[in-house]
Amino acid sequence: MSITRTEIEKAFRALQLHICQGLEDIDGQAKFQEDPWEREEGGGGFTRTISDGNILEKGGVAFSAVHGPVSAAMKKQLNLEGEHFFATGVSIVLHPRHPRHPIMHMNVRYFELDNGATYWFGGGIDLTPHYVDLNLATDFHQQLKTTSDHYSMDFYPKFKEWADRYFFLPHRGESRGVGGIFFDHLDEECGLSKDQIFQYCLDLGRLFPVAYKHQVENVSLNEPTDAELNWQALRRGRYVEFNLLHDRGTKFGIYSGGRTESILMSMPPRANWEYNLELNEASEEQQTLAFLQTTQEYKLD
Amino acid sequence: MSITRTEIEKAFRALQLHICQGLEDIDGQAKFQEDPWEREEGGGGFTRTISDGNILEKGGVAFSAVHGPVSAAMKKQLNLEGEHFFATGVSIVLHPRHPRHPIMHMNVRYFELDNGATYWFGGGIDLTPHYVDLNLATDFHQQLKTTSDHYSMDFYPKFKEWADRYFFLPHRGESRGVGGIFFDHLDEECGLSKDQIFQYCLDLGRLFPVAYKHQVENVSLNEPTDAELNWQALRRGRYVEFNLLHDRGTKFGIYSGGRTESILMSMPPRANWEYNLELNEASEEQQTLAFLQTTQEYKLD
Repeated sequence: MSITRTEIEKAFRALQLHICQGLEDIDGQAKFQEDPWEREEGGGGFTRTISDGNILEKGGVAFSAVHGPVSAAMKKQLNLEGEHFFATGVSIVLHPRHPRHPIMHMNVRYFELDNGATYWFGGGIDLTPHYVDLNLATDFHQQLKTTSDHYSMDFYPKFKEWADRYFFLPHRGESRGVGGIFFDHLDEECGLSKDQIFQYCLDLGRLFPVAYKHQVENVSLNEPTDAELNWQALRRGRYVEFNLLHDRGTKFGIYSGGRTESILMSMPPRANWEYNLELNEASEEQQTLAFLQTTQEYKLD
Repeated sequence: MSITRTEIEKAFRALQLHICQGLEDIDGQAKFQEDPWEREEGGGGFTRTISDGNILEKGGVAFSAVHGPVSAAMKKQLNLEGEHFFATGVSIVLHPRHPRHPIMHMNVRYFELDNGATYWFGGGIDLTPHYVDLNLATDFHQQLKTTSDHYSMDFYPKFKEWADRYFFLPHRGESRGVGGIFFDHLDEECGLSKDQIFQYCLDLGRLFPVAYKHQVENVSLNEPTDAELNWQALRRGRYVEFNLLHDRGTKFGIYSGGRTESILMSMPPRANWEYNLELNEASEEQQTLAFLQTTQEYKLD
């Protein structure tokens, strides 16, 4: 007997609390606030947000477990064949205060139709530094590869490429950050059991605070300059563009009547836009932009 | 012989310059910069932007005239039956510096298929105050009604209701501002000749600087408080949400490979987001929000 949806739901809720504890330890100052909510058609969630921290300016770690009839919007957007669905997951976006700290995102989710007649897992972690540091980007990819290799040697290369495609803004010709991994519709056809795939999702979730801590601890900080803060705000503007124009979860949630505040907890506290931004060729900002305009292959063990 | 597409194009370009002159006079400090651009498949435009003015913090007045084969994306999104298209128009978004001055938007456009076998005009003007003033909102609607009534008594009531539907954010349960007018697919079936509809579009364009001047001159200003500036930034965040999630022109432009910088000149210089914003019941901010959550009928002559 493989794992039940109730066990997955409980484990994801525990994962949310574990991650929040880890992030509070990293921040050292701010604490998460929890907002419980219910969904009229079935289920609900706990949205946990943090703000004005030592490291974290604005962030959210959301858990939800919802169920009900498959709506017309879901049929159309998700191409679903089934009558009733159950979905549970954990989603995170962190916007740090300092421009030399990165934005980081994670999502793991489980979806089933008609009491498990069909099921799949999806997820991803990706890193969006305002200033790219190749060593830290490589470390991040190494962490993802090591965790993934434990389950299947196919996962990291396949899911890294998927992230490169997914986290790309065609209208800017840029990726939103240094990528990571992304996967969807993962079930036993991948060669792993349902329990193993579930453990993979939990391992990715547990990696999140470890990986964020590594990014935060391995950069030397000065008081941010106005130029750095402005660049951070401009990169946050790109993050807004990605989430509202392209991110499938955000668009599906908004258009299908999901809980707006939970969906848009991913928005940065502040974002800027400038018309036709011009950067000095030799600047660090231009170096980051050039990096984001090219697909990267990292040297990993 | 009714007006040709070349004459419409020339008149729209002249309208752009006329509006820019009017806005420079209102601002009294900043000047528009002009960016010419060409479209690979045919045509191009002149994007004019202004920033760091006395009144205007960031604004754009764009003109374009483009043509070419009807692409698959256009067929799908615009439901077009034709081989070749021509489109020309003027679009404006102004983000003022002071929270007591409003955001204002306008667009007039002409579209034809297969050398005029089919044509239509579209357009709209709408007002987004950060703080609603009922008298100024009423004045704005009166200006639109007076201009529209000169052409058809049907236009204002029909196009006002269209704007109420169009400029609505379902995920927020709010309209983006106090509305205005919106119309599309306007051709001789409305009872007016092509020349008359064209003159209506030009009159709306000429009204824009007059209406903006009225909004700017009829408010008494103090040095903005931090609370006012924060509220302005939050309302700008809603403007971003509308434009990236709902605005048809923006989405069509982005997804079909239009010129990103011209399309996204509508973005505010700065925008903020807060999770689950709570407002004091008696505050002016809450009064504005309550106003935007209800459809308004203005008392007009």
